[in-house]
Amino acid sequence: MNAIEELKKEFSEITRLNHIRSLLGWDEQVNLPKGSFGGRAEQNALMSKIIHERLISDKIGKLIKEAEKLKDLNLIDNATLREAKRDYEQEVKLPAELVEEISKTGSLGYIKWVEARKKNDFSIFQPLLEKMIGLQIQVAEKLDTHPDPYSTLIDLYEPGATYDWIANIFNKSKQNLNSIIKKLENSSDKPDFSILTQKWDKNKQWDFSIEIIKGLNYDFNKGRQDKSVHPFTTSLSSSDTRFTTRIDDNFFPTCIFGSIHECGHALYEMGLMEEIHDSVLASGCSMGVHESQSRMWENMVGRSMEFWKFWYPKLKKNFPNNLKDKSVKDFYRSINTVQPSLIRVEADEVTYGMHIILRFELERDIIEGNVQVSELPELWNEKMENLLGITPPTNSDGVLQDIHWSWGNFGYFPTYFLGNLYGAQFYKTALKQHPTLPEEYEKGNFSNLLAFLRENIHQYGRIYQAKDLIKRVTGEDLNPDYFIEYLEKKFYPIYRI
Amino acid sequence: MNAIEELKKEFSEITRLNHIRSLLGWDEQVNLPKGSFGGRAEQNALMSKIIHERLISDKIGKLIKEAEKLKDLNLIDNATLREAKRDYEQEVKLPAELVEEISKTGSLGYIKWVEARKKNDFSIFQPLLEKMIGLQIQVAEKLDTHPDPYSTLIDLYEPGATYDWIANIFNKSKQNLNSIIKKLENSSDKPDFSILTQKWDKNKQWDFSIEIIKGLNYDFNKGRQDKSVHPFTTSLSSSDTRFTTRIDDNFFPTCIFGSIHECGHALYEMGLMEEIHDSVLASGCSMGVHESQSRMWENMVGRSMEFWKFWYPKLKKNFPNNLKDKSVKDFYRSINTVQPSLIRVEADEVTYGMHIILRFELERDIIEGNVQVSELPELWNEKMENLLGITPPTNSDGVLQDIHWSWGNFGYFPTYFLGNLYGAQFYKTALKQHPTLPEEYEKGNFSNLLAFLRENIHQYGRIYQAKDLIKRVTGEDLNPDYFIEYLEKKFYPIYRI
Repeated sequence: MNAIEELKKEFSEITRLNHIRSLLGWDEQVNLPKGSFGGRAEQNALMSKIIHERLISDKIGKLIKEAEKLKDLNLIDNATLREAKRDYEQEVKLPAELVEEISKTGSLGYIKWVEARKKNDFSIFQPLLEKMIGLQIQVAEKLDTHPDPYSTLIDLYEPGATYDWIANIFNKSKQNLNSIIKKLENSSDKPDFSILTQKWDKNKQWDFSIEIIKGLNYDFNKGRQDKSVHPFTTSLSSSDTRFTTRIDDNFFPTCIFGSIHECGHALYEMGLMEEIHDSVLASGCSMGVHESQSRMWENMVGRSMEFWKFWYPKLKKNFPNNLKDKSVKDFYRSINTVQPSLIRVEADEVTYGMHIILRFELERDIIEGNVQVSELPELWNEKMENLLGITPPTNSDGVLQDIHWSWGNFGYFPTYFLGNLYGAQFYKTALKQHPTLPEEYEKGNFSNLLAFLRENIHQYGRIYQAKDLIKRVTGEDLNPDYFIEYLEKKFYPIYRI
Repeated sequence: MNAIEELKKEFSEITRLNHIRSLLGWDEQVNLPKGSFGGRAEQNALMSKIIHERLISDKIGKLIKEAEKLKDLNLIDNATLREAKRDYEQEVKLPAELVEEISKTGSLGYIKWVEARKKNDFSIFQPLLEKMIGLQIQVAEKLDTHPDPYSTLIDLYEPGATYDWIANIFNKSKQNLNSIIKKLENSSDKPDFSILTQKWDKNKQWDFSIEIIKGLNYDFNKGRQDKSVHPFTTSLSSSDTRFTTRIDDNFFPTCIFGSIHECGHALYEMGLMEEIHDSVLASGCSMGVHESQSRMWENMVGRSMEFWKFWYPKLKKNFPNNLKDKSVKDFYRSINTVQPSLIRVEADEVTYGMHIILRFELERDIIEGNVQVSELPELWNEKMENLLGITPPTNSDGVLQDIHWSWGNFGYFPTYFLGNLYGAQFYKTALKQHPTLPEEYEKGNFSNLLAFLRENIHQYGRIYQAKDLIKRVTGEDLNPDYFIEYLEKKFYPIYRI
């Protein structure tokens, strides 16, 4: 066995250990009895320790060095070496004490965040957030992959991306989004949003979500859908990708569009080529590209007229009272209502980007030390006013709404909006190559879009980095204009503009 | 830290790794998608390898030697050393290749057993069974804890027990069981078994099983009930003990009594004293004592008249059509029907022992080389005729009915009957100390029996070995007469003798 083969063997065990840790996590969210969290925390910590020790072992370090001497590596071997080195260096550079301190601060921070949000009192969360930001700055210093610390943190979630690159894209998008939002606001013919806020039977919603997911070719032989408070997708092996949803009986979109969204993530992980199953390459290439898959299925497909031309008659059969006298067009317009709102996770396709841009700008300023944590609530509200023209009445509906900062995930938010942009550009190419896709949706056939995504994106896992992948698939670098173009083409007719 | 403290620390990690492996197993039985078994098998193997390496490490060997030099160890430390040494030596003595060969032969053996049973063709299973027996004899030779190999295998499941000790107990029981069975057979007033074989709504059975388990003080904050093909109980930490049941809509006892049985196992593991949580001592002290808990709750409590005086009105409310015109006495007699039957897992309390005695005698002869595998089907049928007066019409209903041998579990079966015997003796002591227990059941109060079991048995885990435990609790060695006495006192009135 040469060094690459040995490296693959080592990393296949590390990947399996990661999958086992993911099972601990999945079970914690889906099944764990309330009184068992303490024991599970110990198990999580033990698995993380074992994985850490494996990853930073001398053996791995030596194999990477040896493998770097090998010439003419093929595509997979080359990517294996690159990603193995990336994982190894990330793990080696971070002192165990720092990782442990972050983990502890995150656990306590989460508790304080919950309390602060409940009591609408930012000062309860503030000291923990300050501590966490200090720790994240230390992480950036230790990793030191970019000259500015925020780019180093972004790189953890979106390999190769930098602050400047994203800022340029987001600034351009901000102007365009603003102009679309203004136009839609001035429309005198708006959708009827109240269709969605009726009483929707929970069991029927669940059954319908299963039916749709099957229709999207999610393979229940290699996965399952369950319920959890926070929906998520996770791979427990390369032949076991599960996701969760939640059901709100007063709001239709939560379950169905949540299911389609997570299903999009799952289809990505289920589409890996067999050669990289359970290897270091066996996951999505970046959080942004991952999000492009979930958002594409959720919004570009799942909120399209063609999709509902097929599904609406079935929906109406299941919910005859809710949809009495409502046409598919009424329903389609309803699920595409655009209105500035306070809470990111409930935002529509158009205003969503503004929520992310706000967080991106604040994160940058915090990590660079330009603003203090104590200033965040006010700055948040100012930015909301600037970007969306509304001011949160409470901090719970403002700066305290997201879980991410309590865990220390700085640099993660921008990938959500990047996902929308990647998604629009990928989808445009898919439509160019397969112009009949929307017609196929009307007949309930979603397999050709999946085939396109499998062939061009899914199968490669981490083989190509995001910036190479988008160029390979679409012929150009990430260009935010495609998303804007998509929004204008879709939403002006909905708002009769 | 002295050697004992260090040993505890090492074994707390090993125990947690075992719990994580148990989660892989629980999930496999309860949740795993069909197409994901391959990946899970790899994960199981990896976890087993990691646990094996930890257990046989030089560090553990050295700590045990050092700990043996310490004097005046307290109860827990002494037991920790004893059980740690037991686990270590078992693991060290067995070559990794032998363990792997058994695992592979077991996997293939299981497949062949399923096929053989389906086709009613013993010859399909025979070669694998022969191989497995050879491997188990090797295990006995390597471990060499007793002069005869079968005792060495028995010791794996029932520490301290030997063939001679069990044979003496079983032979005595055989005569007594035979005489009871004969008397019951000759009764002219038998229960109406057909009550149980009506159509019983599955969802209602499930709900009722949950209600009963709650009534028995199973703590859903530290566990859960799910469904699986083969019911089982497993601890995923010392604060997370889960079990499963199955539901047959044509046979009432399967779900409810299965749930009570597994609940009995679970209550044992849930009752460990906190000092030994997640330690090497954190499990039952033997399979026999474990089974005593499940059988006591299932039969001595769950099939008693007092139990149903409380639960029958609720049952009747849930199943009014099934129980129309049936009194609690009719029902009580029905669930205590005794009749020689072919399948062990469906056998009643009285004839059950005969099924075990048959297997015990055959296992001994196979391991000692007194009989050939090819002779097993005929010997099985002869023994069934001798012990219960019936002959299996097919091998699928005879020698091929149990899964245990395919996995190589020789020496396991006798613990099932030992469980009945331990149970009767423990229960007699409980009733002597708390004569009002049955009256309490009539009021739905089951907490005093649990308190007795917690105080005397559960809390100790592996601290006391079975032979010491029974003497501590009941004042004498295991005596099978208590079980016979229990049967006579219960079943003669039911059969109006």
